[in-house]
Amino acid sequence: MTQMDDAKNGIITEEMKIVAEKEKIDIEKLRKLIAKGYVVILKNVNRDTNPVGIGQSLRTKVNANIGTSPDCVDIELEIKKAKIAEKYGADAVMDLSTGGNLEEIRKAIMDAVKIPIGTVPIYEVGKLAREKYGRVIDMNEDLMFKVIEKQAKEGVDFMTLHCGITKQSVERLKRSGRIMGVVSRGGAFLTAYILYHNEENPLYKNFDYLLDILKEHDVTISLGDGMRPGCLADNTDRAQIEELITLGELVERCREKGVQCMVEGPGHIPINYIETNIRLQKSLCKNAPFYVLGPIVTDIAPGYDHITAAIGGALAGYYGADFLCYVTPSEHLRLPTIEDVKEGVIATKIAAQAADVAKGNKLAWEKETEMAYARKNHDWEKQFELAIDKEKARKMREEIPSKEEKACSICGDYCALLMVEELGKR
Amino acid sequence: MTQMDDAKNGIITEEMKIVAEKEKIDIEKLRKLIAKGYVVILKNVNRDTNPVGIGQSLRTKVNANIGTSPDCVDIELEIKKAKIAEKYGADAVMDLSTGGNLEEIRKAIMDAVKIPIGTVPIYEVGKLAREKYGRVIDMNEDLMFKVIEKQAKEGVDFMTLHCGITKQSVERLKRSGRIMGVVSRGGAFLTAYILYHNEENPLYKNFDYLLDILKEHDVTISLGDGMRPGCLADNTDRAQIEELITLGELVERCREKGVQCMVEGPGHIPINYIETNIRLQKSLCKNAPFYVLGPIVTDIAPGYDHITAAIGGALAGYYGADFLCYVTPSEHLRLPTIEDVKEGVIATKIAAQAADVAKGNKLAWEKETEMAYARKNHDWEKQFELAIDKEKARKMREEIPSKEEKACSICGDYCALLMVEELGKR
Repeated sequence: MTQMDDAKNGIITEEMKIVAEKEKIDIEKLRKLIAKGYVVILKNVNRDTNPVGIGQSLRTKVNANIGTSPDCVDIELEIKKAKIAEKYGADAVMDLSTGGNLEEIRKAIMDAVKIPIGTVPIYEVGKLAREKYGRVIDMNEDLMFKVIEKQAKEGVDFMTLHCGITKQSVERLKRSGRIMGVVSRGGAFLTAYILYHNEENPLYKNFDYLLDILKEHDVTISLGDGMRPGCLADNTDRAQIEELITLGELVERCREKGVQCMVEGPGHIPINYIETNIRLQKSLCKNAPFYVLGPIVTDIAPGYDHITAAIGGALAGYYGADFLCYVTPSEHLRLPTIEDVKEGVIATKIAAQAADVAKGNKLAWEKETEMAYARKNHDWEKQFELAIDKEKARKMREEIPSKEEKACSICGDYCALLMVEELGKR
Repeated sequence: MTQMDDAKNGIITEEMKIVAEKEKIDIEKLRKLIAKGYVVILKNVNRDTNPVGIGQSLRTKVNANIGTSPDCVDIELEIKKAKIAEKYGADAVMDLSTGGNLEEIRKAIMDAVKIPIGTVPIYEVGKLAREKYGRVIDMNEDLMFKVIEKQAKEGVDFMTLHCGITKQSVERLKRSGRIMGVVSRGGAFLTAYILYHNEENPLYKNFDYLLDILKEHDVTISLGDGMRPGCLADNTDRAQIEELITLGELVERCREKGVQCMVEGPGHIPINYIETNIRLQKSLCKNAPFYVLGPIVTDIAPGYDHITAAIGGALAGYYGADFLCYVTPSEHLRLPTIEDVKEGVIATKIAAQAADVAKGNKLAWEKETEMAYARKNHDWEKQFELAIDKEKARKMREEIPSKEEKACSICGDYCALLMVEELGKR
């Protein structure tokens, strides 16, 4: 039984109670949202996960991608990344490892943190195919489903599966005139598979079988957007929207089966197309939770893509995206360091908070108002306590202190607040 | 004669030619925009400034605030800040010094860079008043206009003057129920002046005289928003909009006199009120260039306010703000360091580029498309060249290199681009 099955049957689970309490939402309202598929709760039945709710009426959530690559395998480093992501408020972590012993790394990360863990199983499939048969492209159906089932049993809470990469979307892609083609790694694996073997994507063809596996362990499927644009010029094109239509159909099949699902979205979108993208997904996918990667709003800032993504993520969240995948400063350049992970999580938490405030979320506003009073009252300890990064805020203030202890060194004793306050006392 | 006077008289100045060339805009179109007051060119007749155009149909510009405070006076440091701001693409610098010898600092900064320099003369007025009479509040009309005239003669290109702080706006403020009152330093000086002396703001009362001084040196007036909100909860309130209405009236008086003017705006605004703020300013102030501080979209991220401001600035720019004042990571905590200035400028340049792309600016799109092709072609040198921070991008990539030289260490030889490219070759 999945959370969705229970919700449909009128059953309130422990996980629903935890989520309702955290979000300060009426439990019956939450149950209905889960039953309709507007909200998912990430929690594999086989793992002792702290359940996280994602979707309509809940706060915007943040995911941090970590994991090894063929160029850098250091399991301890990845564990540290997972922990720092959790420390700074990531609601979930995806292990995207492609180098080293993937099962071992995954288990270590799952042991290291309590937040939900996601994966992209096709990476392990590709790696095993290369090891067994020589090339990624030599992967086959059997291997795909074996890996997915294995990961589901291990306790993976949500999986990105690129089921919308189909013969038809690949045809659309060919006629799209894109600059950058496919930039999704999983999307590229499956596009290559379709083109090379001239066969339909097994994850699409056997979608019901896939759902049976996921349902057994209550793995939430995150329908991947393998056709997402890789640069601003390619945004919102026919290949992308073709895939999104298919994903919308698959959402309905998930719901019929009682499998929890989310839909993934871009990527690279200029500001003036973000609203369009969100509304389109919400409409085509019948309000399934929307999980976006960024989006980044300009491509000319490698080294600062946590900022380009925070801009896009804040706006996406405001228009209705439910789950923001962080982007780190090192995106497009190299595997992230621990510091990059921290910067990425914080930038994305800022975006989520900005979105929630703009949507009128009460919990988000409470924090804002508390901070306003802390500033008005020159209560610096309270300001640090409320800050998204307490240590950094405190350290910065202490580096160049003010002689006027209530003020800071920007204005010193010319502090506007103090000046008007002083006058009020007279 | 100001640029505006010349434009009205059908004269095309050298400065207009330079701006038209940089912006790739028809010179006659530019002249008309200047004549109407929809565009200003920052350039004092007494300074050898590289002229910068700000306003409708031009790219979004970025300002960096620097300057000493009573707690930290280091002239060499401020010069370095000005230079690093210019290096990373700031279009203007404001010297907001309040500590040390202000005239000396200002001159040093004006000598150090070629971009336009702005000031808030009331700071020097307040400092001199304190030195001469004991308190900031002891400032008087005579001192105000002497300082303004002196700075205009020195070559200051634009000045923030809080002419909209009036007896009436102060009354509105009292009835506003704000949490944070006045947070603008200059605004606080003048609010205090009005309340203490029970007299009208001299900058408002003698506005025509003020314009005579500015006109002589073609100083662009930046009508300050002393009533800007200091926290999200106070945004777009009656005190703020009362002041904006007054500023709109003053814009018309500037235009009649041929004095170039901009209008300043907040500050702290949740995402869902940014569009409202921009449209309101454009309407009330008859399309005068809008110069916004941030806006920051959440208050809970001290230490990261370059990011909260980049979110707000990108959106503001998209809706029509013309000039973005940066916010540094150390805002609300301490005076910025050189590194903070760099981070602040880059974050704001990102916001400006994102806004310009969304508005369809051709120059902005050219860069995006070039970057897309550089990535498609694995042309890393070109990517660095196009990057907003070349050194950082290169350094990051080199820190964790990939064995696959065309790729980066995120995917290594699982690179999506390479995989699909390989298939295309077969």
